[in-house]
Amino acid sequence: MGAHCSRRAWHKGVDTIMQTAPEIAVTRWFNSEPLTLAGLRGRPVLLHAFQMLCPGCVAHGTPQAEKAHRMFQQTDLQVIGLHTVFEHHDVMTPAALDIFIREYRLTMPIGVDEAAEGGGMPVTMARYAMRGTPTAILIGRDGTILHHGFGQEDEMALGARIAQALG
Amino acid sequence: MGAHCSRRAWHKGVDTIMQTAPEIAVTRWFNSEPLTLAGLRGRPVLLHAFQMLCPGCVAHGTPQAEKAHRMFQQTDLQVIGLHTVFEHHDVMTPAALDIFIREYRLTMPIGVDEAAEGGGMPVTMARYAMRGTPTAILIGRDGTILHHGFGQEDEMALGARIAQALG
Amino acid sequence: MGAHCSRRAWHKGVDTIMQTAPEIAVTRWFNSEPLTLAGLRGRPVLLHAFQMLCPGCVAHGTPQAEKAHRMFQQTDLQVIGLHTVFEHHDVMTPAALDIFIREYRLTMPIGVDEAAEGGGMPVTMARYAMRGTPTAILIGRDGTILHHGFGQEDEMALGARIAQALG
Amino acid sequence: MGAHCSRRAWHKGVDTIMQTAPEIAVTRWFNSEPLTLAGLRGRPVLLHAFQMLCPGCVAHGTPQAEKAHRMFQQTDLQVIGLHTVFEHHDVMTPAALDIFIREYRLTMPIGVDEAAEGGGMPVTMARYAMRGTPTAILIGRDGTILHHGFGQEDEMALGARIAQALG
Repeated sequence: MGAHCSRRAWHKGVDTIMQTAPEIAVTRWFNSEPLTLAGLRGRPVLLHAFQMLCPGCVAHGTPQAEKAHRMFQQTDLQVIGLHTVFEHHDVMTPAALDIFIREYRLTMPIGVDEAAEGGGMPVTMARYAMRGTPTAILIGRDGTILHHGFGQEDEMALGARIAQALG
Repeated sequence: MGAHCSRRAWHKGVDTIMQTAPEIAVTRWFNSEPLTLAGLRGRPVLLHAFQMLCPGCVAHGTPQAEKAHRMFQQTDLQVIGLHTVFEHHDVMTPAALDIFIREYRLTMPIGVDEAAEGGGMPVTMARYAMRGTPTAILIGRDGTILHHGFGQEDEMALGARIAQALG
Repeated sequence: MGAHCSRRAWHKGVDTIMQTAPEIAVTRWFNSEPLTLAGLRGRPVLLHAFQMLCPGCVAHGTPQAEKAHRMFQQTDLQVIGLHTVFEHHDVMTPAALDIFIREYRLTMPIGVDEAAEGGGMPVTMARYAMRGTPTAILIGRDGTILHHGFGQEDEMALGARIAQALG
Repeated sequence: MGAHCSRRAWHKGVDTIMQTAPEIAVTRWFNSEPLTLAGLRGRPVLLHAFQMLCPGCVAHGTPQAEKAHRMFQQTDLQVIGLHTVFEHHDVMTPAALDIFIREYRLTMPIGVDEAAEGGGMPVTMARYAMRGTPTAILIGRDGTILHHGFGQEDEMALGARIAQALG
């Protein structure tokens, strides 16, 4: 219960912080008009990558991202949930995600990561070389990656990082 | 977050404890050969009705039923998970449930409640007049219903009820 | 945070379950007239040994014993809290315990374990060869020890043990 | 369980944020040389007022302040625990606090608020017009009060406030 979900595919990318956050590739949006990092340049962005059947996401990561979305709504922080399906594509469909979002009453913008040709790791997940879900990525006003974390984020530390990105 | 899922359909049955537990109607089993209450007569049974996208089930009810399954495995208690889909049938399919069971590492026997003609409340759920998910039903050795609870079960009380049914 | 408190003195007694529960030695009672195991013979007894400055007691054991006291109050289970001070006697006085009981709104009977001559492990704690606090001891209707556990008790298991002792 | 402790005395002060943080009055220090706000001017300060027998402090506030002390130790934030005894002075003595600090393994600097003549609310608590314990007060680099909260602090919000004071 509560386990994080590791991407079992071969780890193609680097895991360190990249200079500039690559653009996200989203094929469908919930709770929002389409968003791009380019369009959000100048604002800090918290990217929360999750899967609706990942226990560690449902128990910790996703409620935490939703909480950040609500807590900082009077700032210019943009929280984005990203449904990065890298396994079980046939059951974690956008239609299923739609129900998940409603049942869990999520109000943050949520995008569906673009499926890769031939399945496996979706496009944005691969661009960021994510290790699995949940992953939290904090992007600064200038578009650089400030934090890239896999697994459970400490709540006090996350609050501090967001404030630092805002200030 | 963590909300229970109420059946929104009209409440056809009675909500009080019925004399004898009606038979379960299951169309597919996971983690077990097919089970029937008739075949289990003489043993106490804990029936845990849930839906894989019901927040209160995922956070509380289902882990608790799995825990009871493991804790009392040296007794003759039979724990049965029952996937009682009464809404969003198109996304909470047996194939999706299969993944859910694996991701959450559930080992208790889990049956899919028989869909009703025309959708809505499935057959076993209707027979027991359940109000929603999660629901916990404890059945005695003689087949009578000892407890029928909707929502979060207190862990100490559940342990006591099971021991009482066993003793 | 939340650590149990081990008795650091030499371990004089045996740690296995003794045939018959030795009598408790209490010098002062809170929330109750004086109680003795002899006088309670025929009823199951849950003995919860704690210290008011033991983190594992305050966070888990003591609230759990109080919960059992309230949950089973319509049965003939007798819950007894036992303040077994084996260190820092000068600050965990009965006067301090009195305030602790009020601040934490404890309503179960609580007895102060009789101090040993020369300090160290108090009398009842030594008779039961307890390893530290919190300790939970469940005594059957016939006065035999059914369970003797040091540290955090699982809530479902404790509920089951109490029901078994009652049934 | 877990209740905050309200100061029952008459509420002499104002509850709003005062321009400048008044100096603290401490008669004994644990884990630190004596500290003063004057001496700390230029650094942000988190003041955590607590009582060792206040359930809401022991369960939430004090562990949270200790966590902040550890998390931000590479910054110039100064966390100070302040034992503000406003009731039960006879049992919450400095000797008892000493044991509490050791049992809960607290490493942040902790000062004993100066007792008022005639008992009741101690000096620093009165200067800040605190409503009870736990209270969290965040003081900026310039000595002004940035936040004054009574009760349970949200962890994400506290992290954000500290980062804001630091940045």
